[in-house]
Amino acid sequence: MALPAKVTLVEVGPREGFQFEGIGQADKISTTDKIRLVDALSETGMKTIQFASFVSPRQVPQMADSEAICAGITKRPGVDYTGIYLNDVGLKRAIDTGKLTISGRVYLTASEAFGLRNQRRDFAADLAMQRKMAAIFRDNGYPVEHGGLMAAFGCNYEGDIPIDRVTEMTASLHEIAAEFGGTLKRLSLSDTMGWANPELIRRTVGAVRTRWPELRISLHLHDTRGLGIANVYAGLLEGIDHFDTGLGGLGGCPFAGHKAAAGNVCSEEVVFLCRELGIETGVDLARLIDCARLAETIVGHKLPSKLLNAGTVRPAQVVQAA
Amino acid sequence: MALPAKVTLVEVGPREGFQFEGIGQADKISTTDKIRLVDALSETGMKTIQFASFVSPRQVPQMADSEAICAGITKRPGVDYTGIYLNDVGLKRAIDTGKLTISGRVYLTASEAFGLRNQRRDFAADLAMQRKMAAIFRDNGYPVEHGGLMAAFGCNYEGDIPIDRVTEMTASLHEIAAEFGGTLKRLSLSDTMGWANPELIRRTVGAVRTRWPELRISLHLHDTRGLGIANVYAGLLEGIDHFDTGLGGLGGCPFAGHKAAAGNVCSEEVVFLCRELGIETGVDLARLIDCARLAETIVGHKLPSKLLNAGTVRPAQVVQAA
Repeated sequence: MALPAKVTLVEVGPREGFQFEGIGQADKISTTDKIRLVDALSETGMKTIQFASFVSPRQVPQMADSEAICAGITKRPGVDYTGIYLNDVGLKRAIDTGKLTISGRVYLTASEAFGLRNQRRDFAADLAMQRKMAAIFRDNGYPVEHGGLMAAFGCNYEGDIPIDRVTEMTASLHEIAAEFGGTLKRLSLSDTMGWANPELIRRTVGAVRTRWPELRISLHLHDTRGLGIANVYAGLLEGIDHFDTGLGGLGGCPFAGHKAAAGNVCSEEVVFLCRELGIETGVDLARLIDCARLAETIVGHKLPSKLLNAGTVRPAQVVQAA
Repeated sequence: MALPAKVTLVEVGPREGFQFEGIGQADKISTTDKIRLVDALSETGMKTIQFASFVSPRQVPQMADSEAICAGITKRPGVDYTGIYLNDVGLKRAIDTGKLTISGRVYLTASEAFGLRNQRRDFAADLAMQRKMAAIFRDNGYPVEHGGLMAAFGCNYEGDIPIDRVTEMTASLHEIAAEFGGTLKRLSLSDTMGWANPELIRRTVGAVRTRWPELRISLHLHDTRGLGIANVYAGLLEGIDHFDTGLGGLGGCPFAGHKAAAGNVCSEEVVFLCRELGIETGVDLARLIDCARLAETIVGHKLPSKLLNAGTVRPAQVVQAA
């Protein structure tokens, strides 16, 4: 399969990254700084910026200011601003902001052990919650068209996830969408804890495609064990054209059982990879690197991005020979 | 092409990594610590450990103790201990130690601008030096069978390197080997400054293979801009079964024009990648991770390896669900 000519990236650093940074220190990153970064990102060419998380302010206090960020940002036309919500209460909060792009999306978790930690629900309770949320989407005029599967490639608590489970749960996502009058058009596969490898990406994508050839697949990858960019490349080789990324390599999930794990696959490294492969992203790499530097300033420590340290190549970075 | 069933890794961290660490502080890493790390590495299953650099002690004082390390290590049967030498003086020093595996190897540099900085020689002077060294190899009973090409994928001083130049210089390496009674059997392509991308790796390997189908190719990759592991995967997809790696992601070239660049592609991440892909390396990953931790202790700061922070997966790392 040919590499895609163009890929779409979703910047998730201000949500997933700042959520991880704020563990145990909820006020580490000020609302003002969060707004500043979201506004800077909107100037890079990133078409979707995810910054809000409508989860329990008691359990994830570092995201309690999601409404305040929504109120403070300067919305740029053509950019979608998004957040996450793990239950009906969060979804209603997100809709109520009036600032976010809401899409009818249902999520399942391939590892029950992880789901019990992250959402505090077993498989059955999770299915019930997705139906409850699907009803809210439908009733508010958002057709259920997107599905997601967390921990789709492995789990720190459970180990390997069989590909059959991925396809079975994808079938469940299709069923839920149909029950509520929608049609599943896109599936997001998340490597929440960094268990994927390039061949597993290809086999999993292949298995889903064989059964649902029309379904568009997105990848949400983590660079936890250093394979993140190789996994992106494997996705590109399968024609995947939609990825979640985090600037600077910010990120990590507070319930994933890592103390010092690397975060999301790094936005500027993915943009650089695509540029070097001749794939269009629409993202201005220099501006994105500036944003990653701003993120480093905001969190107060170095971020894992290697490109940020080394700088890009060609044209500006070619040192003139003496 | 199928992935190789087995790959061979050459551990270069104690040479390339410590060389970079010691810039401006030649005694930062003690000879004792260097010996300790080499001896620990010899217990991991790594079959070749490169730790010595017979270059000018005036210009690279941090490697001036190469002979002392040779004298101090406990040689383990079945392990090759190697070093580098950029001219005839260095080669003679290496032979004189009596401790190293010497192989008849000639090296050219695809970027003249980089060669002028690293070896202080232009193309013509470099060709002359390789002939001088080839004569020494021949006269000491080491047939010239290996060739190397530095900066084969791009250069911070010169920019892109055309693939035609790679094949032309590979032809020169063949000629030199033949002139001195040898036959080029292996070619090492070095991405000295981290300019490679997965498709460039595949195109370059393909171009060399088309012309010399019997030539075995090794890759020496850097993770300067975050694409290192993706480039290894691209090499594996082309059937490449021989890589240089640096534990912890140690490394970098002092003359490559980087201030804070990431180093060699990380040994434990490559071993992990191979293991996850079902490729045999013969390396004990847990022991190698212990060595990377020792290297962190020795250099006194965190190394870029993500696997080192996050830990591997399966079996020991699967946290038992409560």
